[in-house]
Amino acid sequence: MAEDEQTKQVKTLKQRVWEIIFEAETPAGKLFDIVLLCFIGMSVLAVMLETVAEFKNKYSSELLFVEWFFTIMFSAEYLLRLWCSRKPLRYATSFFGVVDLLSCLPTYITLFLAGTSGFAVVRVLRLLRMFRVLKMAHHVRGAHVIMQGLVRSRAKITVFFFAILMFAVIAGTVMYYIEGNVEGTSFTSIPMSIYYAIVSITTVGYGDVVVQTNLGIFVTTIMILTGYAVIAVPTGIVTTELMRGKDNESDHTTDACPSCGAHGHLADAVYCRRCGDRLDHD
Amino acid sequence: MAEDEQTKQVKTLKQRVWEIIFEAETPAGKLFDIVLLCFIGMSVLAVMLETVAEFKNKYSSELLFVEWFFTIMFSAEYLLRLWCSRKPLRYATSFFGVVDLLSCLPTYITLFLAGTSGFAVVRVLRLLRMFRVLKMAHHVRGAHVIMQGLVRSRAKITVFFFAILMFAVIAGTVMYYIEGNVEGTSFTSIPMSIYYAIVSITTVGYGDVVVQTNLGIFVTTIMILTGYAVIAVPTGIVTTELMRGKDNESDHTTDACPSCGAHGHLADAVYCRRCGDRLDHD
Amino acid sequence: MAEDEQTKQVKTLKQRVWEIIFEAETPAGKLFDIVLLCFIGMSVLAVMLETVAEFKNKYSSELLFVEWFFTIMFSAEYLLRLWCSRKPLRYATSFFGVVDLLSCLPTYITLFLAGTSGFAVVRVLRLLRMFRVLKMAHHVRGAHVIMQGLVRSRAKITVFFFAILMFAVIAGTVMYYIEGNVEGTSFTSIPMSIYYAIVSITTVGYGDVVVQTNLGIFVTTIMILTGYAVIAVPTGIVTTELMRGKDNESDHTTDACPSCGAHGHLADAVYCRRCGDRLDHD
Amino acid sequence: MAEDEQTKQVKTLKQRVWEIIFEAETPAGKLFDIVLLCFIGMSVLAVMLETVAEFKNKYSSELLFVEWFFTIMFSAEYLLRLWCSRKPLRYATSFFGVVDLLSCLPTYITLFLAGTSGFAVVRVLRLLRMFRVLKMAHHVRGAHVIMQGLVRSRAKITVFFFAILMFAVIAGTVMYYIEGNVEGTSFTSIPMSIYYAIVSITTVGYGDVVVQTNLGIFVTTIMILTGYAVIAVPTGIVTTELMRGKDNESDHTTDACPSCGAHGHLADAVYCRRCGDRLDHD
Repeated sequence: MAEDEQTKQVKTLKQRVWEIIFEAETPAGKLFDIVLLCFIGMSVLAVMLETVAEFKNKYSSELLFVEWFFTIMFSAEYLLRLWCSRKPLRYATSFFGVVDLLSCLPTYITLFLAGTSGFAVVRVLRLLRMFRVLKMAHHVRGAHVIMQGLVRSRAKITVFFFAILMFAVIAGTVMYYIEGNVEGTSFTSIPMSIYYAIVSITTVGYGDVVVQTNLGIFVTTIMILTGYAVIAVPTGIVTTELMRGKDNESDHTTDACPSCGAHGHLADAVYCRRCGDRLDHD
Repeated sequence: MAEDEQTKQVKTLKQRVWEIIFEAETPAGKLFDIVLLCFIGMSVLAVMLETVAEFKNKYSSELLFVEWFFTIMFSAEYLLRLWCSRKPLRYATSFFGVVDLLSCLPTYITLFLAGTSGFAVVRVLRLLRMFRVLKMAHHVRGAHVIMQGLVRSRAKITVFFFAILMFAVIAGTVMYYIEGNVEGTSFTSIPMSIYYAIVSITTVGYGDVVVQTNLGIFVTTIMILTGYAVIAVPTGIVTTELMRGKDNESDHTTDACPSCGAHGHLADAVYCRRCGDRLDHD
Repeated sequence: MAEDEQTKQVKTLKQRVWEIIFEAETPAGKLFDIVLLCFIGMSVLAVMLETVAEFKNKYSSELLFVEWFFTIMFSAEYLLRLWCSRKPLRYATSFFGVVDLLSCLPTYITLFLAGTSGFAVVRVLRLLRMFRVLKMAHHVRGAHVIMQGLVRSRAKITVFFFAILMFAVIAGTVMYYIEGNVEGTSFTSIPMSIYYAIVSITTVGYGDVVVQTNLGIFVTTIMILTGYAVIAVPTGIVTTELMRGKDNESDHTTDACPSCGAHGHLADAVYCRRCGDRLDHD
Repeated sequence: MAEDEQTKQVKTLKQRVWEIIFEAETPAGKLFDIVLLCFIGMSVLAVMLETVAEFKNKYSSELLFVEWFFTIMFSAEYLLRLWCSRKPLRYATSFFGVVDLLSCLPTYITLFLAGTSGFAVVRVLRLLRMFRVLKMAHHVRGAHVIMQGLVRSRAKITVFFFAILMFAVIAGTVMYYIEGNVEGTSFTSIPMSIYYAIVSITTVGYGDVVVQTNLGIFVTTIMILTGYAVIAVPTGIVTTELMRGKDNESDHTTDACPSCGAHGHLADAVYCRRCGDRLDHD
């Protein structure tokens, strides 16, 4: 009976930890999410600053400390997540489980292997962890409406992209045959010319590839103006969808599956839609 | 009677081939269209990569093989189309008939004439063949709505372009008289200055032509801001038309005329709207 | 009586000429307008090409011929307009009267004064004459709707421009104090920095002025993103106005005042709203 | 009684001055606001021109005169504001009180301290004083509607910015690992690459950082096209909000609190919402 009591105690502790790190309903859970967001943000910022030569030379020891601090924090968080999951393996093999692991592993590897700064790119993947937190915030009104608008205009935007691409391929090929033979040209190949066409049509206009012949100037002008009318289309599409968008209240909960940690269950869901386990704790 | 049987057999075969390569109602027809789209895409990609010097040097034999593979496939397709058309000549002289021929001819010509790589541009015309397949897909919801929006705002967009052009001509001329006499200027002529004006108004801004005088900076600033308000117009036009757009179900079929191969007939059409032949097979 | 007849004859001729060159109701009047539009377009094109050095060297005699051809045509037109106006002086002193005169005068002046190619800029003013013809076409549906949309959103667009300008002034000054002291900077003065800010906010981005310091990069990023949200406003304004726009049928006539040649009278107007003369002939 | 009369007289004068410089209901008050706007505009223009080297060398004495003229005018205005406030200290410590002081102080300081041209940046803060006048004009129809639209779409635009930033961080990091090792690259660090990503996605495209590798070109193209669809969102958001916007008549007065000078009181307000003093003069 005493053991039963203790088990219950442990269970309750596990459950409480679970509620804090996997869900966002309780004040502690919300606080944890905010702290986690900050930590992710700061650790990514540190990874970025590491690539700035002058900064790295000046604050190399501080960067090292910050890196290890976050690595240890994330490792602890990962172990906690493993521990309080009912089926740790299922969590470990889930998408976010892998991302969580990847966000602390590279630092340990650099300990044993010198000159593996290339792992830095993996550490930026930490940013993906933000989505876990943000997914819970997906009933934030603004994001939901925007998402709906984008999803609903998906088909039209795809069609549009295909059209733009064909337009760019044809315009780029024409430009290549106009400009390709001029001395000192930047239109060295058709793909390069298509890059020019896309950069022009979308009004980016870097200026690294520019025309030299009179005919090229004329065709570019036509291309820009034609493209400009076409490019007005996605704005129109998104606006139309956004206006149609009723903000039909989302009925998703922030509860996560106790086994695999999947989010986004409907309010009346009893079983996890991903692993099929019961969603309630025992 | 046996011959009649055989004729019927042949006819049926011809008809079945026709359904596969000219129409998209049957599963085989749809598959053919998808394969054709992929082939066109890949052959155009090959033409593009051929112009990339480093790629060509490395994979010149592979490119040659790919080129001949697609040429033979397209030739076979062209002959099949000719064979199963009720009136082959009419097909051969139709727009897509000429495009189909042009997409395989250049490779044969390079066989006899050395140094005719200029024919490559003709091979990119293969891209036009995509429109034949896409035309059948024009009852795809997204494309239809966008098309309708663009077509309905045609008049307004034309007016808009004329206005932009006049604005650019006047602004460009003014810029020419401000910047034209400065040493080392890029405003070497009025057309060049109009090019600058259009590149600025549409917010492309390559930066190959830039102002040098204080007055030029001032006028450019005014021009950009004025242009910015005007350029908001096409977006507004397209959005307005897209919102008005009811997706009135299109009642076009994917059937093609057995004589000339024209698409886009209404569901109740009995005769081809282009050549006047009966649409049904005998 | 015979004289009365003749006067009437002459009057009728004058009236007929009037109808052709000042109005657009009759077939002849429409034809005249179209020919005039083409002539203006071609003469402006000639003026442009004259500034292209290589073109001028090659076709200098042709350009001279074209120039004199159009000058004589425009002179004849001007005299005809003077002759068939009931009060020639009033026409000559009207806005379009002056523009008409200016479009042929410069060529004559270059006859007596050598090295006056500077007059070329005056000849581009011929473009303004297009507005006379286009004004008559202002009941063209598209132009009218766009015009209405722009006019109605005038107040809001003005407010918007003022806001953008203040934003650019503050952002530009901040950028000047960040980048102004760096060696080899392009931020040589506050106006230059404001030019940079406007070019950035409107997404033109020539690239002639670019940041060099890390702080400058950071501030530019913030500026671009903030500006991007603000710049969405004019599109929204114009779209809103365009959607509200009812194409209330315009009841303006294409008749012109026989005295001063002013256009745009209402259908029931009896007297010219500009000079007060009767609108009907006799 | 005579003294009482005099006190009343003074009070009335104070009150009249108050009405002129703090409010915009009376003709004199409106005139004062317009003159003030012009003075602020001109003084800021002078500060700008001071930084243009060639202009400063030529007109240094004129600039000095203008600077002192405006400084003395603004000082006089500041003292008047202090004098006619019922509680001068409260005005002096209010936001606009501090801005008013800062707009004339720097010039006096340069009198005693040589080589303090750095104070110039403070003088541009005069621009902030424009907001005081413009705040009174906030019932201008256009500004109000735009403001409402922006405020209402605040939440959505924030979400959007966060999304763009995350997209730019990931795209920038990817670009850094593609382009960072190429010789002579401009992608020297991750922040630099993020700057490139933001400049590309927002279609600014300076061209100071450009890709060199084929893979880089490919990724940039994808990034621009993806970004283009996403960037259509803020326009859609603002348009949607602007269309929903009813121009519900604002019932704010232009009266200012006699104690602290705060604006924006409701028509039926009796006490200042900022300092709690009665709004009416005794």
